[in-house]
Amino acid sequence: MNDHVLAQLADTIEARRQSGDPATSYVAKLKAKGLDAMLKKVGEEATEFVLAAKDRNAMQVTYEAADLWFHSLMALAEVGVRPEQVLGELARREGLSGLAEFASRPADPKI
Amino acid sequence: MNDHVLAQLADTIEARRQSGDPATSYVAKLKAKGLDAMLKKVGEEATEFVLAAKDRNAMQVTYEAADLWFHSLMALAEVGVRPEQVLGELARREGLSGLAEFASRPADPKI
Amino acid sequence: MNDHVLAQLADTIEARRQSGDPATSYVAKLKAKGLDAMLKKVGEEATEFVLAAKDRNAMQVTYEAADLWFHSLMALAEVGVRPEQVLGELARREGLSGLAEFASRPADPKI
Amino acid sequence: MNDHVLAQLADTIEARRQSGDPATSYVAKLKAKGLDAMLKKVGEEATEFVLAAKDRNAMQVTYEAADLWFHSLMALAEVGVRPEQVLGELARREGLSGLAEFASRPADPKI
Repeated sequence: MNDHVLAQLADTIEARRQSGDPATSYVAKLKAKGLDAMLKKVGEEATEFVLAAKDRNAMQVTYEAADLWFHSLMALAEVGVRPEQVLGELARREGLSGLAEFASRPADPKI
Repeated sequence: MNDHVLAQLADTIEARRQSGDPATSYVAKLKAKGLDAMLKKVGEEATEFVLAAKDRNAMQVTYEAADLWFHSLMALAEVGVRPEQVLGELARREGLSGLAEFASRPADPKI
Repeated sequence: MNDHVLAQLADTIEARRQSGDPATSYVAKLKAKGLDAMLKKVGEEATEFVLAAKDRNAMQVTYEAADLWFHSLMALAEVGVRPEQVLGELARREGLSGLAEFASRPADPKI
Repeated sequence: MNDHVLAQLADTIEARRQSGDPATSYVAKLKAKGLDAMLKKVGEEATEFVLAAKDRNAMQVTYEAADLWFHSLMALAEVGVRPEQVLGELARREGLSGLAEFASRPADPKI
């Protein structure tokens, strides 16, 4: 059921970026404000995610994760990156064994 | 190809949380450190995402988004939330028109 | 001229926390919202500081540093810590040589 | 006793930036890494401050505030801003009444 949600959301973001009305579309409004405004939201939502997670409030943390991922998709669209590329990078890392990854890329998160 | 990547990654995280060896598994090691250590990484990776996006460096921002989403999955697992729930919340919001969403939930990001 | 600015500001914050009117005082309003609201502002202002510094915009970074320090003073007040204590900790670290500090407290920033 | 701590610390940072040895001085080492490395630390320390404050752990929050202010001083130095300028901005705001400030600069934190 949730397949392709991020890709579909990126499509919707792209459509609203191109022809959305800032008066009714949040995406169009944030695009008009520019990259810094999107990145402020990423920082803000990351902090709200941290606060909700520290409370171990599952419902709130679900909303905040949605906010965080959504605004990171907004910034990715602005920079020309598709969520499929991020998912591809995550899939690539998952294919590496924890030890091999540890040895080859010490600064990256190893799964 | 990228279908189910987040769900599969959550499964891998759950498996390593339960039986991974902290000496070879990054997930097992971070789980042993606890929730605060995961949240520090979320804050750290959010900042690195912001810096890479501000440079409009598409390759770097892809890596940082992967780091950010991965560590948010780690925190979600610790709190007992599945990525499918976050994707479901995003799908729910996408179904609402920008204007209706604006009227009904003013504090949330509207698409 | 700038001596005691942080201590005086903490005094003002304390006075407004106790008897300020949320309708006219920002401090009283933020106190009424609680600790999480203060910490959201810290996260938000830290991101704005990062964005302004990355632009090397000296005037903007001065404003954002003031915002960041101000909101950290708000959170310190809520937790019962005076800025003098933070300044005392900074003075203590400055007294240590870089190398000695490095050897004795590897996880802390060494000056 | 704590007078001038930030100004003295900025002087020390400036001296180490110019002639410190990256092998023994944390400041010299971080300067060699560049602005982004300083800003990553600001983001990281802001998150650690948030986590410690949310625990209402007064001792830990004092250390984290010192870390956060120290790394913001490092970034200010890199951008050519003195702490006296930030303190001057805070003093300027404090001189305004909450209501007047509210009316004149709605987007800024009002004291």
